[in-house]
Amino acid sequence: MSLITIMTDFGLKDGNVGVMKGVIYNIAPNAGVVDLSHLIAPQNILEANYVLTRSVPYFPDGTTHIFVVDPGVGTLRRPMIAQLGQQFFVGPDNGALSGLILKARESGMVTRFYALDQPEYWLPKVSHVFHGRDIFAPVAAHFAAGVPINQLGSEFFDPVVLPLKPALTRPGKIEGEIVYIDHFGSLASNINEQMVTELKAEPAEITIEVNGERIEGMINTFGEREPGSLVCLYSSTGVVIVSVVNGSASQRLNAKIGDRIVMSRKND
Amino acid sequence: MSLITIMTDFGLKDGNVGVMKGVIYNIAPNAGVVDLSHLIAPQNILEANYVLTRSVPYFPDGTTHIFVVDPGVGTLRRPMIAQLGQQFFVGPDNGALSGLILKARESGMVTRFYALDQPEYWLPKVSHVFHGRDIFAPVAAHFAAGVPINQLGSEFFDPVVLPLKPALTRPGKIEGEIVYIDHFGSLASNINEQMVTELKAEPAEITIEVNGERIEGMINTFGEREPGSLVCLYSSTGVVIVSVVNGSASQRLNAKIGDRIVMSRKND
Amino acid sequence: MSLITIMTDFGLKDGNVGVMKGVIYNIAPNAGVVDLSHLIAPQNILEANYVLTRSVPYFPDGTTHIFVVDPGVGTLRRPMIAQLGQQFFVGPDNGALSGLILKARESGMVTRFYALDQPEYWLPKVSHVFHGRDIFAPVAAHFAAGVPINQLGSEFFDPVVLPLKPALTRPGKIEGEIVYIDHFGSLASNINEQMVTELKAEPAEITIEVNGERIEGMINTFGEREPGSLVCLYSSTGVVIVSVVNGSASQRLNAKIGDRIVMSRKND
Repeated sequence: MSLITIMTDFGLKDGNVGVMKGVIYNIAPNAGVVDLSHLIAPQNILEANYVLTRSVPYFPDGTTHIFVVDPGVGTLRRPMIAQLGQQFFVGPDNGALSGLILKARESGMVTRFYALDQPEYWLPKVSHVFHGRDIFAPVAAHFAAGVPINQLGSEFFDPVVLPLKPALTRPGKIEGEIVYIDHFGSLASNINEQMVTELKAEPAEITIEVNGERIEGMINTFGEREPGSLVCLYSSTGVVIVSVVNGSASQRLNAKIGDRIVMSRKND
Repeated sequence: MSLITIMTDFGLKDGNVGVMKGVIYNIAPNAGVVDLSHLIAPQNILEANYVLTRSVPYFPDGTTHIFVVDPGVGTLRRPMIAQLGQQFFVGPDNGALSGLILKARESGMVTRFYALDQPEYWLPKVSHVFHGRDIFAPVAAHFAAGVPINQLGSEFFDPVVLPLKPALTRPGKIEGEIVYIDHFGSLASNINEQMVTELKAEPAEITIEVNGERIEGMINTFGEREPGSLVCLYSSTGVVIVSVVNGSASQRLNAKIGDRIVMSRKND
Repeated sequence: MSLITIMTDFGLKDGNVGVMKGVIYNIAPNAGVVDLSHLIAPQNILEANYVLTRSVPYFPDGTTHIFVVDPGVGTLRRPMIAQLGQQFFVGPDNGALSGLILKARESGMVTRFYALDQPEYWLPKVSHVFHGRDIFAPVAAHFAAGVPINQLGSEFFDPVVLPLKPALTRPGKIEGEIVYIDHFGSLASNINEQMVTELKAEPAEITIEVNGERIEGMINTFGEREPGSLVCLYSSTGVVIVSVVNGSASQRLNAKIGDRIVMSRKND
């Protein structure tokens, strides 16, 4: 069985995700299809990038990921199929793969990109507004069904990679920002474990400031504090997050994407 | 593998859709099940009709579609299994198939309707409030597993077909209305491409009026206008829609189902 | 095919449920996976218990149910795999199985509980905040792929069973409360058919009081009353519910979990 995931900003009401699966099963009846998310904020490529970057490593080698967060649908932006290591991606070349491309390049994985230009692998009639159904789903299904990647398009070498703003590290201090807010209202930052290590401070000796509140010390797990406490810890993928135990940090701090998070050694 | 889709107004919290799948897999362990939508507005048969009409053509021949938007559950409305061309439908005979029945009749497809009256293909205990679980899911599963359609019920010939209000066309003018509002806030009308063709005007020469705003010219694709522009174009299924590029026409125009859309030749 | 269901409070945006499926398919490529609900209110074990108790009986023997509503993630609460009759459960030992454990014991089913303590069946790196991905999904997948239950952990005999508040029955009167509010705004109580039978009154002779409103008589099905009527009937799983026909009782009565429902014989 070939596995295909789908991530979109289509929401769950209109039937469009179901329609993409209908198209897939027409071409690849034995594919397995997994929903990654359909609640990406409309046209929000950075959010798509965030969810893909943290999710893809948990899928089996050979998985094909369709991603359709596509403000440029119907324009000249390239539709593409990409290979990053042993995972495959079908969607618009608009930066949603930025994090994964950077990681793949850093770790020396294979990276290949093909601009989709073979309409025989698309639906016969292509609309101007729904390439998920008309191009991306059928191409992913043909690929999952065995069509070689280089028959689906023409290779290119300059995929869009967005400038993902890194946190600013100075001796004893990290200035980052909120890059994602999850279902529980936890605030994910662009600060990772390695940056924190470079603070050269015990977790308990780190002060975190965000939206006018100050948190003393990082913890390992929610259970170390009472429900309602504002806490700072590592997420399941190793980035610094700010949460409220059994509550919502987003509501408590009235936080939004882009708000500043500063971490520093206590005595500095 | 037999494919079964499910569309309901059950929402995604209570576990009822999962329960229907449990019932299906008990009877047809090898079926593939696809969610079409579970966010149809409660008891809204017209919305169910709209989503089914536009989605069903993309599924493989032989697919069985369960639809449960059922304000009359537990009353005398007929539970049915229907065949329209090579697609099959299991649900209440309440008009949700209207658009598909009209299209099937127009194009000369096979149309057959059977009132479900063979309790041996239902769950042993049938509740008064959840026929999706007790009748429709098991019947669809038995059908997918090979039971002939005419063993599941008794044929009838007068399915409910709702009077779907057509747009009014006059020389140089079309008076339609909003029939659906999608996840992105785009407004779908009851005006189709053929009606627009009869205006005998270039796309750029058509004026669209909706909720006090006026749009000059239809475009092909969102990319032709700046983000934030109010635009008029064809949807992926060929109906006239009004959208805001990377925004919500529904919010911008404070629009609702039933609001008027008028298209006319510019010089008239 | 082995069937695995997943129930969480993770919501549908962040990709975490998709990631769990990626982990499952890595280990058990032929498993079938069904979503039960991902909109359980955050950390709400009682809601998880309610949805599991009413849903599980409709799944095939041998199904494995992953449940992750886990306010104690990362603390000493036991991760477990449990057998109740011919259904299996993987998640935290925190009371979410209470209703099912009580029913299994009452009906003399097999009940077995194993504390997960064999890291070879987990992901290599276990985070402090996402045991759904790191422990529960891989254990369920290994079990579905054939690893015997007693190789996954060490048996224990004292699972957490929450004191589920029963309705109070007196001659001619039942004092219950609202325990769940569903997608349609119907109010589910902790009063069941057997308690009502003990009222020794015809359905039409029962008075129901809830939040200052009084309903005269139980009905069988929504169709017996006009849209907009406040009604009392049995749910599809045999508990007393209060609904508004084609409307929301929750909105109409401004009701919340824990509000009192009193049923009595009319003449008393």
